[in-house]
Amino acid sequence: MARHKALFRCFAGCDGRYELTEPLYRCPECAGLLMVDHDIDALRETSPAAWMKLFDDRYKRTAWPYGSGVWGKREWVAPEVPDDLIVSTDEGGSNLFWAERLGREIGMGDLWVKQCGNAHSGSFKDLGMTVLVSVVRQAISLGKLPRSCAVACASTGDTSAALAAYGAAAGLPVVVLLPRGLVSNAQLVQPLAHGATVLALETDFDGCMTIVQELSRRGLVYLANSMNPLRIEGQKTVAIEIAQQFDWQVPDWVVLPSGNLGNAAAIHAGFEMMRATGLITRMPRLCVAQAANANPMYRAFAAGASSVAPIAAEKTHASAIQIGNPVSAPRAMAALRAMDGVVEEATEDELADACARADRTGLYTCPHTGVALAALFKLRAKGIVNATDRVVVISTASGLKFTEFKLGYHEDSLHDVRASRRNAARFLPADVERVAKEIAAIESPVAS
Amino acid sequence: MARHKALFRCFAGCDGRYELTEPLYRCPECAGLLMVDHDIDALRETSPAAWMKLFDDRYKRTAWPYGSGVWGKREWVAPEVPDDLIVSTDEGGSNLFWAERLGREIGMGDLWVKQCGNAHSGSFKDLGMTVLVSVVRQAISLGKLPRSCAVACASTGDTSAALAAYGAAAGLPVVVLLPRGLVSNAQLVQPLAHGATVLALETDFDGCMTIVQELSRRGLVYLANSMNPLRIEGQKTVAIEIAQQFDWQVPDWVVLPSGNLGNAAAIHAGFEMMRATGLITRMPRLCVAQAANANPMYRAFAAGASSVAPIAAEKTHASAIQIGNPVSAPRAMAALRAMDGVVEEATEDELADACARADRTGLYTCPHTGVALAALFKLRAKGIVNATDRVVVISTASGLKFTEFKLGYHEDSLHDVRASRRNAARFLPADVERVAKEIAAIESPVAS
Repeated sequence: MARHKALFRCFAGCDGRYELTEPLYRCPECAGLLMVDHDIDALRETSPAAWMKLFDDRYKRTAWPYGSGVWGKREWVAPEVPDDLIVSTDEGGSNLFWAERLGREIGMGDLWVKQCGNAHSGSFKDLGMTVLVSVVRQAISLGKLPRSCAVACASTGDTSAALAAYGAAAGLPVVVLLPRGLVSNAQLVQPLAHGATVLALETDFDGCMTIVQELSRRGLVYLANSMNPLRIEGQKTVAIEIAQQFDWQVPDWVVLPSGNLGNAAAIHAGFEMMRATGLITRMPRLCVAQAANANPMYRAFAAGASSVAPIAAEKTHASAIQIGNPVSAPRAMAALRAMDGVVEEATEDELADACARADRTGLYTCPHTGVALAALFKLRAKGIVNATDRVVVISTASGLKFTEFKLGYHEDSLHDVRASRRNAARFLPADVERVAKEIAAIESPVAS
Repeated sequence: MARHKALFRCFAGCDGRYELTEPLYRCPECAGLLMVDHDIDALRETSPAAWMKLFDDRYKRTAWPYGSGVWGKREWVAPEVPDDLIVSTDEGGSNLFWAERLGREIGMGDLWVKQCGNAHSGSFKDLGMTVLVSVVRQAISLGKLPRSCAVACASTGDTSAALAAYGAAAGLPVVVLLPRGLVSNAQLVQPLAHGATVLALETDFDGCMTIVQELSRRGLVYLANSMNPLRIEGQKTVAIEIAQQFDWQVPDWVVLPSGNLGNAAAIHAGFEMMRATGLITRMPRLCVAQAANANPMYRAFAAGASSVAPIAAEKTHASAIQIGNPVSAPRAMAALRAMDGVVEEATEDELADACARADRTGLYTCPHTGVALAALFKLRAKGIVNATDRVVVISTASGLKFTEFKLGYHEDSLHDVRASRRNAARFLPADVERVAKEIAAIESPVAS
């Protein structure tokens, strides 16, 4: 196989090309977003059948680092990271769950949920973080970053958890910046446990982003926020993996909860690379699902606007997508255009109800997955999604990260949600006849 | 391939053989434990190389139901369940994490952690529950159980979560019995979310077990507690999968946290079946790790006793193994004998410290995994485990289920634990110079 190569280039089209090991987070010419540019002609020298066979041969096997769903596609991701510098926790390979019972409820027979939250750090962020942290190690080995380089992000949730886990596995210092008073300790327990330096600043989230960007500009830290396009390179493998899990067939729809919109860009990048290399011949349609309380992309789409105007996001249980000014909006706009996409929104009531409904059919959904499912229910009701369409909903995080939300729902203590599918424990004496009577009265979940 | 067959038989050796679809939980002759009996001669008609190839060809592939790590070995588990009655969430295939940094700290280069908690319901219990719930559906289809049969367990944790998830996916009613007042709502959020009937009884845990057994004796529910040997059949695949992930090599040690001891029996059953069929030629050594506060097997082993005397278990952070009278003690005794096993214990301080230490190296450990790691540290210090031994520690549940424990540790609010590896957030003004100074003072995790 040919030796493959990928470089940073400007998303807006400036001329420069830069090695992935350069600590760059914006275009040096126009300060716009960067993307990773692959040599598609070189990749096309290998036939589609040969790529599919290569990816299948590596999938979940034991030869390092190819068992990872990300590094099994390394030529398409970050081709030049040496094996021994890769930091991997066996990313990808997550279950594509056939939501048989949930689908039946909404008149769909081909509904699937990609369980990305079933991952080392409990969210889909692992897919991108393995690439970023591995490239940091490569940059250190090349002398482009200092040996003790700290990797930093401003984040209150899944990003800091994933970064801290991969940093700890690699032995790299990790710094997490967050707004003092706006974050609960429970949100921080993963980075704290992984030994990250957690700095609570007297500012808001934007203030933390400003500081971490200034620190990275000075070369004091390496920036791990999703502005860094290395994250998207890893995340895009979920699109490739979905096709692979359908024996290289393309679904009709991918439904994705999105706040900062980097994952919408990643889904597009993955399908587009398969199209460009001939592995697939059509694109799925994309639905970007947003919380109604944090819906700048929904507003832009509804208005037919060509760019996304920032809004002040309101509080939502889907906390990871509570973002009013999404960094990757231009990338996501391109994704929606290329994938005949739509944007849908979900209220707090709708997202909570969708979670409860899905959980009753065997899933254990995070609120963001609830947003995506609620959006799908609407698209189905409107007839935009058809009964026979093959639909994949991306589940982004583990429901185990959201015990308070689920408990609040089933205790009916969430002030902004009507818990109409609440399930509560029943209290009985320890009497076998009383218990038998209770059991005799249970309605079968299928019958009900 | 020959048609394979498995039957229940008495663990103590009574003569009877019974179909796996019979609702039996104890030997009808002597009321002792049951086991699943495979026709090893029939299995031996297929060569070891052919079995390995078959298991490898199926591993994590798309042909239903073989992508599951359990059903990919179906001939060795429950050979006669029809495809369309299997309830699977893609069990197994969990990462065998090379604990490079943690191993280096204790002078070991070949230390691995099997991440069984990275599963649909967040624990290794999925491995057994998929078999049990699938056999229930088969029994219903054969008319051996009523169509609306409820599946029930007495459990406060992982068992009820796994049962509720699989029951919800299958559309079967699930009943969970638990002692009122001894269980927090957080422990119940998984079965509640999955729509299980959760009955809180005015009794203790033993009282709940008595009632659920009486209900199953009357045929009013199907019993899902680990007395049911179908659970062990699924769990044993973790042993086969470990060998498979080492390209069919056997590690020197398997270290396992254990309370009710069914998982010790399962590890033995898996390796023993590989030995009997010729896939491996030697057994690993087994370490059963118990919390010092709930250590009946440790006491029996230390005393050289041939059976396990019940004790009153005291409270431990490793709540899932807080068991004083383990159901599977006779099975585990046989496992220890066959695997040149040892039993080790860990205090609350030791298990919490082991968790904190492991988390700093990129893992995110549940307290039970902390018990296993602490036991390993002791065995290594005593020279029972050697520096060059290949050791696999079984991580039984997701750390995400234990936010309160980890938070308590890093807030230093656990009354019974000295949090010497505590990591706390630092509070700073939103000033880039102050933040830069803080970052400059970070010691590299590798250097420290």
